[in-house]
Amino acid sequence: MTTDLADFLPQLDRDIRDRADWGRVADYIPELARVDPAQFGIAVALADGTMISAGDARKRFSIQSVSKVFSLACVLGRIGEQIWTRVGREPSGSRFDSILLLELEKGRPRNPFINAGALVTTDELLTGRSPRDALSEILGFLTAATGDGDIHIDKHVAKSEDETGFRNRALANYLKSYGNLKNPVDYVLGTYFHQCAIEMTCEQLALAGRCIAGLPGAPSLLSEQRARRLNALMMTCGHYDASGDFAFRVGLPGKSGVGGGILLVAPGRASIGIWSPGLNGNGNSQMGSYAAERLARVMDWSVFRSS
Amino acid sequence: MTTDLADFLPQLDRDIRDRADWGRVADYIPELARVDPAQFGIAVALADGTMISAGDARKRFSIQSVSKVFSLACVLGRIGEQIWTRVGREPSGSRFDSILLLELEKGRPRNPFINAGALVTTDELLTGRSPRDALSEILGFLTAATGDGDIHIDKHVAKSEDETGFRNRALANYLKSYGNLKNPVDYVLGTYFHQCAIEMTCEQLALAGRCIAGLPGAPSLLSEQRARRLNALMMTCGHYDASGDFAFRVGLPGKSGVGGGILLVAPGRASIGIWSPGLNGNGNSQMGSYAAERLARVMDWSVFRSS
Amino acid sequence: MTTDLADFLPQLDRDIRDRADWGRVADYIPELARVDPAQFGIAVALADGTMISAGDARKRFSIQSVSKVFSLACVLGRIGEQIWTRVGREPSGSRFDSILLLELEKGRPRNPFINAGALVTTDELLTGRSPRDALSEILGFLTAATGDGDIHIDKHVAKSEDETGFRNRALANYLKSYGNLKNPVDYVLGTYFHQCAIEMTCEQLALAGRCIAGLPGAPSLLSEQRARRLNALMMTCGHYDASGDFAFRVGLPGKSGVGGGILLVAPGRASIGIWSPGLNGNGNSQMGSYAAERLARVMDWSVFRSS
Amino acid sequence: MTTDLADFLPQLDRDIRDRADWGRVADYIPELARVDPAQFGIAVALADGTMISAGDARKRFSIQSVSKVFSLACVLGRIGEQIWTRVGREPSGSRFDSILLLELEKGRPRNPFINAGALVTTDELLTGRSPRDALSEILGFLTAATGDGDIHIDKHVAKSEDETGFRNRALANYLKSYGNLKNPVDYVLGTYFHQCAIEMTCEQLALAGRCIAGLPGAPSLLSEQRARRLNALMMTCGHYDASGDFAFRVGLPGKSGVGGGILLVAPGRASIGIWSPGLNGNGNSQMGSYAAERLARVMDWSVFRSS
Repeated sequence: MTTDLADFLPQLDRDIRDRADWGRVADYIPELARVDPAQFGIAVALADGTMISAGDARKRFSIQSVSKVFSLACVLGRIGEQIWTRVGREPSGSRFDSILLLELEKGRPRNPFINAGALVTTDELLTGRSPRDALSEILGFLTAATGDGDIHIDKHVAKSEDETGFRNRALANYLKSYGNLKNPVDYVLGTYFHQCAIEMTCEQLALAGRCIAGLPGAPSLLSEQRARRLNALMMTCGHYDASGDFAFRVGLPGKSGVGGGILLVAPGRASIGIWSPGLNGNGNSQMGSYAAERLARVMDWSVFRSS
Repeated sequence: MTTDLADFLPQLDRDIRDRADWGRVADYIPELARVDPAQFGIAVALADGTMISAGDARKRFSIQSVSKVFSLACVLGRIGEQIWTRVGREPSGSRFDSILLLELEKGRPRNPFINAGALVTTDELLTGRSPRDALSEILGFLTAATGDGDIHIDKHVAKSEDETGFRNRALANYLKSYGNLKNPVDYVLGTYFHQCAIEMTCEQLALAGRCIAGLPGAPSLLSEQRARRLNALMMTCGHYDASGDFAFRVGLPGKSGVGGGILLVAPGRASIGIWSPGLNGNGNSQMGSYAAERLARVMDWSVFRSS
Repeated sequence: MTTDLADFLPQLDRDIRDRADWGRVADYIPELARVDPAQFGIAVALADGTMISAGDARKRFSIQSVSKVFSLACVLGRIGEQIWTRVGREPSGSRFDSILLLELEKGRPRNPFINAGALVTTDELLTGRSPRDALSEILGFLTAATGDGDIHIDKHVAKSEDETGFRNRALANYLKSYGNLKNPVDYVLGTYFHQCAIEMTCEQLALAGRCIAGLPGAPSLLSEQRARRLNALMMTCGHYDASGDFAFRVGLPGKSGVGGGILLVAPGRASIGIWSPGLNGNGNSQMGSYAAERLARVMDWSVFRSS
Repeated sequence: MTTDLADFLPQLDRDIRDRADWGRVADYIPELARVDPAQFGIAVALADGTMISAGDARKRFSIQSVSKVFSLACVLGRIGEQIWTRVGREPSGSRFDSILLLELEKGRPRNPFINAGALVTTDELLTGRSPRDALSEILGFLTAATGDGDIHIDKHVAKSEDETGFRNRALANYLKSYGNLKNPVDYVLGTYFHQCAIEMTCEQLALAGRCIAGLPGAPSLLSEQRARRLNALMMTCGHYDASGDFAFRVGLPGKSGVGGGILLVAPGRASIGIWSPGLNGNGNSQMGSYAAERLARVMDWSVFRSS
């Protein structure tokens, strides 16, 4: 398997660079709008402990919503299943920043991977501690998960989003109006924007996902059951309003971010970090989604595999 | 494994009969409203070719929406991926009979497992042939899949739904108004109501699902890739607005019907038929969902399993 | 006033014929799609008993939704304010044939002038009698209101809509599923399509509206209070999702139909029939709306006039 | 008429105090939640220049959304009909603070009398000047309209709403995310909360409305056409999702606020200020709405009157 991958990844990288349809970088965060869309990296951490990568796999990017998986993992570690009294576990059938369902459902977000739900998760993480400490907990989780202390927050990106994140500010205030934020709105948003502004490389992301993929030798940060449940949430809700399509095409749990990152999980087999900053119409990485589909097919890694 | 199951299923049956919360039978189809909710059956077809069952596993019930999996399989066999031009692959975030999203999305149903999407699938199956022939094709698929020719349509149930299925009639006419039904509305509805009125036992359902679970020795009716994709759709959309929760709790693809049936799939391991006619608030079998969760945990059958 | 109008109407007719933007005829009813959009008629019945008209004011057209005012008047005469238990009195904020709000509001239409609400009104009119008798009652009301027995139903239009009115059929079945139709769906739709297919001329429409305008000498078919309330409904709900704009521009109650007709009411002053079959984006007569605005301004007929 | 009213108003006051159903005070603004609901005042400014009042007609109350009429009048005076590029003129069919339609309509509020629309109006008023100056303009309009300089802002109420107005803060940020606020969100909200916190008595409100009612001798602050258009907007949109019902029952334009105030207009006849702080389920004054209906009936003041 290692040999195949070592051949396949560079070839995938070349194929992608030959294609012209990189998509568009997210333009609602000015700092991200300046990123060149024509970039691509991929890193695969395998069950045997090896890491294979290609392209811009060691370049740092803004993980944005991929961070929602890690903040949820921290919250589950802290308060366990109680979080589900405040947020649901259902796909939303709507865009990542939709406020419509939040009105119909009276302030209870559909799941922790749309923005409204992630704000509730972050609020829970903040309860009883400072924003700085909450962020330290997420970074600490990532350090433990990757074994790499060199993971930081890009404060320019956080500041850029703080200045222009009106949609998220609307969501947070709306949640607050329903009593579904415990902490001051500005604290929650500040923490959320910093959490989203964490920078990682594809290789770091692949390392961080090992505990969710349940790879042998991965740091023991999640129980087997909790890891499976995170996988289930990623599969049904990880790609916003394209989650069904991603499950259909790729057959693996994944979580995307508007920075162009995707954390992809092949339980027991591999943890994969992918990055390409151009987005498709659903706000997911265009080339990243394509790479995920190609990789899953070549390696035959669907969770629905019968043999 | 066989031994464990042979012990576990009867025990599960007893546990369930000790519980009082059977839920309520669907009351919008008069013929179904007369069914006693306090019934339960389960049948597991294993990879080694054995079948283990308990409770009312040989009692016939109305498979209702479970039929959507089989009609979709027939359509995919006939026209392939073209069907996706007429229906999406995304969870709906709404009730099974919601018409709201259909307006927002201009007559293209979100997925083939909500009623509107299944009407489109049935319409496709009807194209170029009579309702009788379309139904024969579905029954033929089931006969081939189970190896059992004793599967029939309960015409009283079909008639009962035809007389009272105003919500489905609304959906069909709405689709027609957007040009997303090719055949006359009454033809489509008649075929759909008959398809939903197919009667099967848990054991028959378990046999029928073997090709979707990719069990060794199952009749070769679907390619491996197509089976996986059906699994993906069942996982993200198979339980209406409780699909996310089902994936979270059970970790296996499944499809429920308002008759109380559930087809549950453990790829490569087992195909499971479950039935208990009392429904929970989301229109899924209350005790059936519970049994699915218990079974998956005891057998450790999550698709997200890492070892 | 009479003199002014006699000068103004022909001039308005000429102005309109000089303009090129007639809009588009309704295309979802094949029989109506064949009408030439470049037609215009206007007739004004004044308080002094005179009638002044211009253009195609004696040409018959399909009154379509304008009939909703007359069927509501009949129902109010029969069962009085009880009808409001089944239908609301609020503007819908949606298109005339929207089904979205009907789901959110569980089968109770927002008002009697959107299609869903008119179906409920017609259903009430049908209760305890045949479709033929219900239609006779509406035609009888019109004969009494106009003093003209020469008002008929165009059966080709009714048939055309019966064959293609899938959206209305969806609405009716949806209402039925919530128990808000008492009679068989096909009876209600058949009656509704025939009621909409009533043909009238602008002059007849102007005569018919005199009782709603409370003109001296008008046949006494409505109490003063009831007439006022019809006016209020026409003002807030008479032009679907452009009712607010119509009230703002024209300042008079009105009711439009997709046949291009508008019944306009200047309480105590005039009853006006307008027709031009080309529609604007909101489904209201494009030149008819323009004519209403011009007429109201020239005659200074706003209900909000202070002197 | 003066005599009748002088008899009627005290009688109405007594009737209302005999009724037990005052409704509930708005509880989402703490400062308003402390107001005793069992209060009622009414003041009628007549065309002959007299003022007749009863009950608590000289007690100050928080005018809240009634201020939207005056801020709109100021904006129309400043930029004229251009404001309609940023806000619609249609009833919303939704609650006063709904954010759902704002998503469906991509940030363009349905009308200037729901909160989102009023925020846009205030934003326009702020453009090119400070919050203090914008508020001075509204207060200046009121001083001119009433001839009374003793109208002030209750800063405790403004502060209370600023601290708890999360729903409005969500709406403002949402508008900003669509580019439909030009000024900083906090400026707009601060100004809006202060504008809503203007305190007036029923008598002052009646005086202020004379220019909208077009009473002889009223200060000349609006053209006749502009006054009529404000009337049309008040009639179709002035009572949120109960506007249709208010038009039906009362037959006069009106604008309510969650402080319990109602400005009621009988064009050419009277301008009426009503106050009773207990609200009904739609957020309108319960006894105020009742008083408006009784008054309009007794005085026969419907705009739909034919004689």
